[in-house]
Amino acid sequence: MKHTSNPDSVLTAILDALKNPVTGRIPIGISNRHIHLSQADLEHLFGFGYCLTKMKDLSQPGQYACKETLTICGPKGAIEKVRVLGPVRTKTQVEILASDCFKLGVAAPVKPSGDLNGTPGGITLVGSKGSVQLTDGLIIAQRHIHMTKDDARNLDVRDGQVVRIEVYGARGGVLHDTLIRANDDSHLECHLDMEEANALGVDASSAVVIKK
Amino acid sequence: MKHTSNPDSVLTAILDALKNPVTGRIPIGISNRHIHLSQADLEHLFGFGYCLTKMKDLSQPGQYACKETLTICGPKGAIEKVRVLGPVRTKTQVEILASDCFKLGVAAPVKPSGDLNGTPGGITLVGSKGSVQLTDGLIIAQRHIHMTKDDARNLDVRDGQVVRIEVYGARGGVLHDTLIRANDDSHLECHLDMEEANALGVDASSAVVIKK
Repeated sequence: MKHTSNPDSVLTAILDALKNPVTGRIPIGISNRHIHLSQADLEHLFGFGYCLTKMKDLSQPGQYACKETLTICGPKGAIEKVRVLGPVRTKTQVEILASDCFKLGVAAPVKPSGDLNGTPGGITLVGSKGSVQLTDGLIIAQRHIHMTKDDARNLDVRDGQVVRIEVYGARGGVLHDTLIRANDDSHLECHLDMEEANALGVDASSAVVIKK
Repeated sequence: MKHTSNPDSVLTAILDALKNPVTGRIPIGISNRHIHLSQADLEHLFGFGYCLTKMKDLSQPGQYACKETLTICGPKGAIEKVRVLGPVRTKTQVEILASDCFKLGVAAPVKPSGDLNGTPGGITLVGSKGSVQLTDGLIIAQRHIHMTKDDARNLDVRDGQVVRIEVYGARGGVLHDTLIRANDDSHLECHLDMEEANALGVDASSAVVIKK
């Protein structure tokens, strides 16, 4: 939290802290491989006019896991039953684990979700009614922390900043290159993928702290 | 390297350093899941009097990957084609990845290789001629650095010490809880499992440095 000397600012900071308690310990969400689809690709895969079927809300507001799964096929192998997340997006994005690159026979870059410029495709998504060959949109998601702008102020970071995080787990450590994603439609949570979480021994009780 | 004030000690340290150059950068070896077998279990799995077939030497002196693979079966699922490493050991030891616990439906502790006291079994190994139900020996190997006693002196660490290592990779970081294994039948190398290596973006050019 920022230090302030003006009494009014101190009061504002205290009120902010009461409204938005930030202990410094940030909960962790663990992501497995998953797929975001554009409406056009969704219809190619599941049929004309198809709508996603919500199965479970996720921690980020408006995001949900869907009943639908797809097979990802690469030049070397395939991965079945990969979960689709909703709602649909402007562009299809496939987030895989680093180890999936070997199974599929493709190279994927570590990139922030949504930053698809220059990303490779090279895979085919197969659904119940059709398939889509991707020319881009394949990434390993860069680890990141979702938060509101108030959280960012309290934690003294800014949207787009890259920080180091200490992970308290059975195999603890400090992970560099963790992206801050601050906007007012977010819930405070650090997103690691399954390999990152397993490497650090993360479980339901684990948390991270931003290291300055 | 230790600092010394006696001129003879300085000379000895320089000669040691010339004989055993240690730059501080330690190469990384990446382990996938694998199995060490006792001779009795080897014979249960592949037949009476069976001997392992060496396929490829590993970096640690006398250790090798074998032609033989096994299926690991747990209460929830199975993993096929898991490599056996040689030579045979006094006790069978199965080293899996944290994510394998979910596939197999078992819980494995993070333990140093060889420290099997109190470890669980709960899995069945299946070979071409038989199967073995394990009552212990299932672990997730604790990350560790193999080195000679000379390397340990040069790096100012001791056998059994737990250190922090900085990993230089595309997703760099610092991993705690890394065990020093120093004996005179070792080759200097830091062993991470595939999930640890993927989480830190390790590739063939990556290295680690011990953090004091």
